[in-house]
Amino acid sequence: MAAYDDLMAHQRETEALSQVAGRLGWDQETMMPREAAPQRGAEMAAMETVLHARRTDPRMADWLAEAETSGPVEVAQLRHIRRSYERASKVPAKLASQIARVTSEAQGKWAEAREADDFAAFAPVLKDVVSLKREEGAALSAGGDVYDAMLDDYEAGATAAELSAMFDALRPRLVALRAAVLDAPAPAALQGKFDEGAQMKLSRQIAKTFGYDMAKGRVDKAVHPFSSGSGLDVRITTRTSETDPFNCIYSTIHEVGHACYEQNIDPDYLLTPLGQGVSMGVHESQSRIYENQIGRGRAFTGWLYGQMRDAFGDFGIADEDAFYATVNRVENGYIRTEADEVQYNLHVLLRFDLERALIARDIEVDDLEAAWNERFEADFGFAVDKASNGVLQDVHWSVGLFGYFPTYSLGNVYAGCLNDAMRDKMPDLDATLARGDTSHATRWLRENVQTHGGLYAPRDVIEQACGAAPSEGPLLSYLEEKFNGIYGL
Amino acid sequence: MAAYDDLMAHQRETEALSQVAGRLGWDQETMMPREAAPQRGAEMAAMETVLHARRTDPRMADWLAEAETSGPVEVAQLRHIRRSYERASKVPAKLASQIARVTSEAQGKWAEAREADDFAAFAPVLKDVVSLKREEGAALSAGGDVYDAMLDDYEAGATAAELSAMFDALRPRLVALRAAVLDAPAPAALQGKFDEGAQMKLSRQIAKTFGYDMAKGRVDKAVHPFSSGSGLDVRITTRTSETDPFNCIYSTIHEVGHACYEQNIDPDYLLTPLGQGVSMGVHESQSRIYENQIGRGRAFTGWLYGQMRDAFGDFGIADEDAFYATVNRVENGYIRTEADEVQYNLHVLLRFDLERALIARDIEVDDLEAAWNERFEADFGFAVDKASNGVLQDVHWSVGLFGYFPTYSLGNVYAGCLNDAMRDKMPDLDATLARGDTSHATRWLRENVQTHGGLYAPRDVIEQACGAAPSEGPLLSYLEEKFNGIYGL
Repeated sequence: MAAYDDLMAHQRETEALSQVAGRLGWDQETMMPREAAPQRGAEMAAMETVLHARRTDPRMADWLAEAETSGPVEVAQLRHIRRSYERASKVPAKLASQIARVTSEAQGKWAEAREADDFAAFAPVLKDVVSLKREEGAALSAGGDVYDAMLDDYEAGATAAELSAMFDALRPRLVALRAAVLDAPAPAALQGKFDEGAQMKLSRQIAKTFGYDMAKGRVDKAVHPFSSGSGLDVRITTRTSETDPFNCIYSTIHEVGHACYEQNIDPDYLLTPLGQGVSMGVHESQSRIYENQIGRGRAFTGWLYGQMRDAFGDFGIADEDAFYATVNRVENGYIRTEADEVQYNLHVLLRFDLERALIARDIEVDDLEAAWNERFEADFGFAVDKASNGVLQDVHWSVGLFGYFPTYSLGNVYAGCLNDAMRDKMPDLDATLARGDTSHATRWLRENVQTHGGLYAPRDVIEQACGAAPSEGPLLSYLEEKFNGIYGL
Repeated sequence: MAAYDDLMAHQRETEALSQVAGRLGWDQETMMPREAAPQRGAEMAAMETVLHARRTDPRMADWLAEAETSGPVEVAQLRHIRRSYERASKVPAKLASQIARVTSEAQGKWAEAREADDFAAFAPVLKDVVSLKREEGAALSAGGDVYDAMLDDYEAGATAAELSAMFDALRPRLVALRAAVLDAPAPAALQGKFDEGAQMKLSRQIAKTFGYDMAKGRVDKAVHPFSSGSGLDVRITTRTSETDPFNCIYSTIHEVGHACYEQNIDPDYLLTPLGQGVSMGVHESQSRIYENQIGRGRAFTGWLYGQMRDAFGDFGIADEDAFYATVNRVENGYIRTEADEVQYNLHVLLRFDLERALIARDIEVDDLEAAWNERFEADFGFAVDKASNGVLQDVHWSVGLFGYFPTYSLGNVYAGCLNDAMRDKMPDLDATLARGDTSHATRWLRENVQTHGGLYAPRDVIEQACGAAPSEGPLLSYLEEKFNGIYGL
């Protein structure tokens, strides 16, 4: 076992350094003084150099060749380490540093272009990003499908063909559901103002209700909600809006879903490749099932209604049923991150199809805005009014995250499957949720998904938990039943 | 210049990583979830391993041999880098990482033992720390004096013999001054309660008054006040006590002294060895002159009295003269960090003598508590009542900081020298301080001390600023004149 032990000792240090780099990212979004950015850039680049050198350390090839394993945990550790080593070794250091430099610049240009609603100002640097990412994808795919190689970074083993099959089945029924819902009379919207301190207090309480361990994490405010870290230090951020307490509450529940996944992984895997969520898709399945199938369900919102009245007094919603409808109100909108459950995946599918076409050279950057606007109108029935509400709304492409978007919808599909399986096992689950007790639901997710960390392949985690191969069916049935009910269709 | 440029590129990355490690330390004291400590220990150890590997990179020997320099800045950079390389190369990587791990653990044990007032509970891990540090000291000293080798880490070029000569001259006159002052009638103590939010607000305002740049730093609360970081991200912490606003105000001014030193270094030195305070002694000279010779002087306290009345209303002190006496009230006490100017150095000298004896094996850890208590009673005239008021009060030894304590008193000696020189140059300085304008004082310190960063040797910085070799004389004269005046001796 000498080679295996040496390899794992090296890897544990790499994982620890990766946690440090992640925490620097957290600090940048929450605590960093505003004029510290140039120094921070140098610090992040230095951490990246160190991590890259460790991931491509020539000794790793020998250790990997010589390591003997004696069980499924060791086999899985080696699988992850080999994958990471091969991935890092395929990309020339010069290309990796070019991508780092260009995407860092592109992020700034994107922010300026979005501010100015001017896609043409962003297009030149986006072309550079796409060109470099195509080059990287070609190096990674070694003759295979370039987009699949990119996707593999976020969702090991997934292919665009498999996702397309699911998403093509989702799209028409979501378009139809959306049209029907928006034709029906809408539930009341929330009115008035809600103290932001009270929102944070309630959100922290809800985070604990979902089992988030505050002794191994913390909640801060940031411009964009996120979860950061693995193991014993998993932090989340949320945000507040005086007129929209749901933004704070459901951002918190969403990030708590991500954070609980990290916190609930088998502690034996701490600071190893198994000690973190296995893929972006499985991660998103946890954040979405916490947020939606549990958090926006009739049972839990009944409890939440009482909590909100305790926190804010009477806010003009008459009863639990009306509150449930208000929480799940569907509205026209341009922005993915603000979308409701019915429309969210339509936003993602649009991006998936466009970025695949872009990487396959079926379209080019200069076609992107027109293609976006055409597809948006086809699915949503109205035109994009400006680039910041359209092709410029998301940061992802500027930082080179091609292959990331589809994991959002894959996570929603997985959440649908898990929700079905969980409720099959626990037919009375809603009785517990109705009194604000999420422990039965979160325990089932912990035992069937979260505790495994990276032990199984992403798709296998879901298949084992559900007893069936994942498909889009459960998500569609759930959405149609829920929204037909709320909207009386 | 190829070798010099390669060396500096490598060094800049090392400095950036060192800033990251420092910020992890800040996070640990301010933000870290309380059960994250074990993981944090692994993260810190991994950073230490990386830093050690970079500092002992075999290429550095070649670069150092080949580097050509063309001016005093390059010469000074090479001096620091060579020193760091030689220091790091003397300590085996395994020992360095053992020290990092054991001191991280010892810090926790120290906190528990202090809580329980039980030195015996701390002694075993302290023995491990002492043993490892002796081993490190032996490696560093290469046959020379082990304690001097440790001291050199914090104050390059200083020796215990030289410091002893100064401190032995300080001690009897401080003991005598202390006895005389405590025999005289005491000024009024502060009474009542002071809103902690208003304390923080006033302290932030005072921090700005002293020139601390909040756009390149931040102020948080922590159990122990400290300053952290160099360059564009220099953070401080402070603390509040409802009954003692001076604790918050003067902790803040002290840390602002440290932080302004870092912020005011020539920006050309950013992320290089010259881009940080040159030694702990010179650092402490800045924090102490801000805190004491400026902040606790008659002129500045006159202005502060008005600020405190604005912040807290009438708090029972009749006028500026009475306030000045109250600020400088001398009281019996056990705790170094709460000590007044008269007694502070007596606390430090005690530690200096004990830790020298410990490293020289003249005493062992099991003798430490008794030795502490005996020396304390000799200098302070009363007995230590419990370990948390005695040998367990400071964190330093738990984290292996042997050779650090004497730099506190050296800093006080330097502050005495700088104060004399500054007032020689600006006889009307008090007129500006009396209206809360510290800019003349801080500009003189910036131009004569702070801007140089690591360009000159520590002692040379003080000697050049003052035009004479540093000695304990100015500090003693200053203290005797000030406290004889306040106490009417």
